[in-house]
Amino acid sequence: MTMAASVSQTTPTHFLPPSNAKARVSQFMQQLQDEICQGLQQLDGGGRFQEDSWKRPEGGGGRSRIMRDGTVFEQAGVNFSEVWGDHLPTSILAQRPEAEGHRFYATGTSMVLHPHNPYVPTVHLNYRYFEAGPVWWFGGGADLTPYYPFAEDAAHFHSTFKQACDAHHPEYYAVFKRWCDEYFYLKHRQETRGVGGLFFDYQDGQGQLYRGTHPAGPAAVHSNQVGALAPRTWEQLFAFVNDCGSAFLPAYGPIVERRQSMNYGDRQRNFQLYRRGRYVEFNLVYDRGTIFGLQTNGRTESILMSLPPLVRWEYSYTPEPNTPEAELYETFLKPQDWASAAS
Amino acid sequence: MTMAASVSQTTPTHFLPPSNAKARVSQFMQQLQDEICQGLQQLDGGGRFQEDSWKRPEGGGGRSRIMRDGTVFEQAGVNFSEVWGDHLPTSILAQRPEAEGHRFYATGTSMVLHPHNPYVPTVHLNYRYFEAGPVWWFGGGADLTPYYPFAEDAAHFHSTFKQACDAHHPEYYAVFKRWCDEYFYLKHRQETRGVGGLFFDYQDGQGQLYRGTHPAGPAAVHSNQVGALAPRTWEQLFAFVNDCGSAFLPAYGPIVERRQSMNYGDRQRNFQLYRRGRYVEFNLVYDRGTIFGLQTNGRTESILMSLPPLVRWEYSYTPEPNTPEAELYETFLKPQDWASAAS
Repeated sequence: MTMAASVSQTTPTHFLPPSNAKARVSQFMQQLQDEICQGLQQLDGGGRFQEDSWKRPEGGGGRSRIMRDGTVFEQAGVNFSEVWGDHLPTSILAQRPEAEGHRFYATGTSMVLHPHNPYVPTVHLNYRYFEAGPVWWFGGGADLTPYYPFAEDAAHFHSTFKQACDAHHPEYYAVFKRWCDEYFYLKHRQETRGVGGLFFDYQDGQGQLYRGTHPAGPAAVHSNQVGALAPRTWEQLFAFVNDCGSAFLPAYGPIVERRQSMNYGDRQRNFQLYRRGRYVEFNLVYDRGTIFGLQTNGRTESILMSLPPLVRWEYSYTPEPNTPEAELYETFLKPQDWASAAS
Repeated sequence: MTMAASVSQTTPTHFLPPSNAKARVSQFMQQLQDEICQGLQQLDGGGRFQEDSWKRPEGGGGRSRIMRDGTVFEQAGVNFSEVWGDHLPTSILAQRPEAEGHRFYATGTSMVLHPHNPYVPTVHLNYRYFEAGPVWWFGGGADLTPYYPFAEDAAHFHSTFKQACDAHHPEYYAVFKRWCDEYFYLKHRQETRGVGGLFFDYQDGQGQLYRGTHPAGPAAVHSNQVGALAPRTWEQLFAFVNDCGSAFLPAYGPIVERRQSMNYGDRQRNFQLYRRGRYVEFNLVYDRGTIFGLQTNGRTESILMSLPPLVRWEYSYTPEPNTPEAELYETFLKPQDWASAAS
């Protein structure tokens, strides 16, 4: 704690956020929600989002948008929220002790899509920004969870985000891709949630690559083999998050277009419902955003909008050898270098 | 920690467990599993349990029994397990610091039943025993989760367990019933899981009524208005747990018999699937047994056998006023004095 405090006390001024940082990020997060909802409605071709605006008694509020029983999407939830309060929950203070004793501000947009067709992957996106006393940081990412996977889709998703990363820092993609594999890991299943994507947290420009807490995952991230990043200003990080946000529709849209008309039957639907159980397990047992929301007395219905509309659990299920279901487990639920597969 | 350590160092010999305690409790837990499975097969009238025996690499193992697609039970899981290892997980050590630095032994039987018919309630039972260095304790209970509730059923369930409690201590029922309301509470929904039953933990005979951690629940338990219990020996507590175990079939069986032939349609089935989501939320977000299992590298399939075979989530669902669904929320998901309602 002493070390952390001394770091923040000697923060050079170019690491400080601009005075209108909160307003700018909040506006960006709302625009991101708008753009994504518009893009998804177009992609769906039938479903429409409905919005609920809500206020949080302790400070702040948000707007939750949900599409149900669309043409493509069985359920699509896109949330914007902006909250503040006296202190961050202890789970975050443990990571950012400099925020202790300070009020906090947090804003973010998050999204989970559950398509009807088991050949169309589920996808998640979240970007967020925090300020608390002497510290601020960006976090977020996007990750893809196929049921019946295609290497081509995983490669397209990854290389789209790699392009966005490469424009900002040559090491971002390698580091944030690994972080994603590590973060979206179900330890009790020894599986990744899907084929990954990007994930980062605690990006405050001071060159720390990694301040995660998850015990599993690639050793390289823990041991800093990837090296520290060159310092980044608030403006540079904000521009990076903007570009990540804009990369989502180009990363996901073409996959939907390729897969949405594929024929499927009970077998594929049952497997999809079963695999959706993993999504529930991840979000309720491990997910930092879900836990933050529940701990800060967030709006439960908005937080749990990520949960699938219909889910199955089946005791001791294992896929038959040499089936597409087995291929998911054997090849796609283990970290792979998908971006290179594209080129 | 100093105080706790001094308590255990001065433990009078009559608080110590007999030398064959582990073997006796292990045998009891297996018998309980046998009796319950036999009783449930009789009650179901068609379904049969299938057993998987398993070993835990770090020490111990268990036998998991599951009935699927029975006449009454869509899924019934009954687990016995017995595990040991170098140290308890930190979540338990925080409650029992005397166990720090000691090897542990834990055995228990747990059960969750998911009936087909929405008029038949879901029910959970778990009894467990721990030893770790200078400390040992019993824990457990049983609780009822109706979808379309009947006061008569809640009263029968509670008064059956009250009888078992009253034979051992005049205050057990009042304390453990309240503890159950508190423990099986979904803070983020501001609902109890169902109509409750009994719950107790850390029963080591030294008269401590309550060592729970859940922040919600009746203030009376926290403030010890119910008073400390008179000391109990290991034998007395073991006899109590035996009687609680035996009370389960008489508490639940008559409810099944009364409700299993009631007609239901899509409306009732959909509501049941929706309410099953709360069971998932509780078990993955709050349940001590689930978290202990996942933290100690338990057998995931056995731990998550409690999750329902089919579940629905629905954004922002609220029941229509003056319906049976609304009655569940308004009357049954709030702590009530069910045992008195019976008399």
